[in-house]
Amino acid sequence: MKERLKKQIKFIKEIDKEKTITRQTLLTNGIQKEDDAQHAWHMAIMTLLLSEYANEEIDILKTISMLLIHDIVEIDAGDTYAYDQKGIKTQRERETKAADRIFGLLPEDQKVKFRMLWEEFENNETPEAHFAHTMDNFQPIMLNDATNGKMWEENKVRLSQILKRNEKTKLGSKILWEYSYKNFIEPNVKKKKIIDDTNL
Amino acid sequence: MKERLKKQIKFIKEIDKEKTITRQTLLTNGIQKEDDAQHAWHMAIMTLLLSEYANEEIDILKTISMLLIHDIVEIDAGDTYAYDQKGIKTQRERETKAADRIFGLLPEDQKVKFRMLWEEFENNETPEAHFAHTMDNFQPIMLNDATNGKMWEENKVRLSQILKRNEKTKLGSKILWEYSYKNFIEPNVKKKKIIDDTNL
Repeated sequence: MKERLKKQIKFIKEIDKEKTITRQTLLTNGIQKEDDAQHAWHMAIMTLLLSEYANEEIDILKTISMLLIHDIVEIDAGDTYAYDQKGIKTQRERETKAADRIFGLLPEDQKVKFRMLWEEFENNETPEAHFAHTMDNFQPIMLNDATNGKMWEENKVRLSQILKRNEKTKLGSKILWEYSYKNFIEPNVKKKKIIDDTNL
Repeated sequence: MKERLKKQIKFIKEIDKEKTITRQTLLTNGIQKEDDAQHAWHMAIMTLLLSEYANEEIDILKTISMLLIHDIVEIDAGDTYAYDQKGIKTQRERETKAADRIFGLLPEDQKVKFRMLWEEFENNETPEAHFAHTMDNFQPIMLNDATNGKMWEENKVRLSQILKRNEKTKLGSKILWEYSYKNFIEPNVKKKKIIDDTNL
């Protein structure tokens, strides 16, 4: 038991580093950038509140667990910005290596459990993974809108990129995807914070 | 439905502020102070991993939900440092007012649900609340030890204060309390990072 707890504590201390992995999203105060831990916390509470809009019934604890741990790999692999074409090419390889190392700190059973949750998120084929991805896309879109589209503008994001990124957002929740399109994306296209290239 | 979702989104945006509520705990890098959202995220994952050490069987989703939301009141009431005697006197009043306002943004059913979870945490009488408090005490003690007791030293914390603060930590998990006492607290008393006043 002592050896097991020691491994668990080692992992728990290691993942503290996720609190310093910065994302390309501003907090609603428009000043600080969000970090991965804050992002995961926010989405976990969002899942508690918004699971009623899931297309299919979901296991809430499983979905939250997935969201809580899905960015741990970024401790080694870094945050890959959604619209970083170059970074996305090597993302899977970097993140798999990170998963091997970091989940590998855990006792075998928990290592397998967390690894499977992470893989399930990555594969995006189950109702829980679908909804987790809906959260993972909805949350930064909401924050980008709340900060007047500043990060979209700074990164010269095009509508076609957002639509491609969100191709599967509706698989988790049609209602939430439509809400975010109408209330967060469309107004920022009108305000020219998002470049409208869809008529090209 | 539209009105309901609007209320939920309003609450979700409001709690973004928790990411800027700073605690008196250093991250393991020894540089930044932790914020409430990071703290809650960390404890939620800890609960996934450490619930096997709970004295009594606990509902994991309920415990995690409690931990995720229990500091939301600090958006209005601020973080009250565990050893701030003056702050602690007005804490309950400030936090109750905050709970009224912030949970009040939610649709009625979810307002009641979150309020009850928060009250359950505060009352600390159920197995889930006991374990949540164990996490809430264990986590900063672990981080204080990982950063060489710097915050204990800076705040001139006495062992008697820590023991009083942790009177109920063992109610959630005897094993984790003993682990933290032996591995985190005792070594820092020896290193004089914690003032040993227990022989007085």
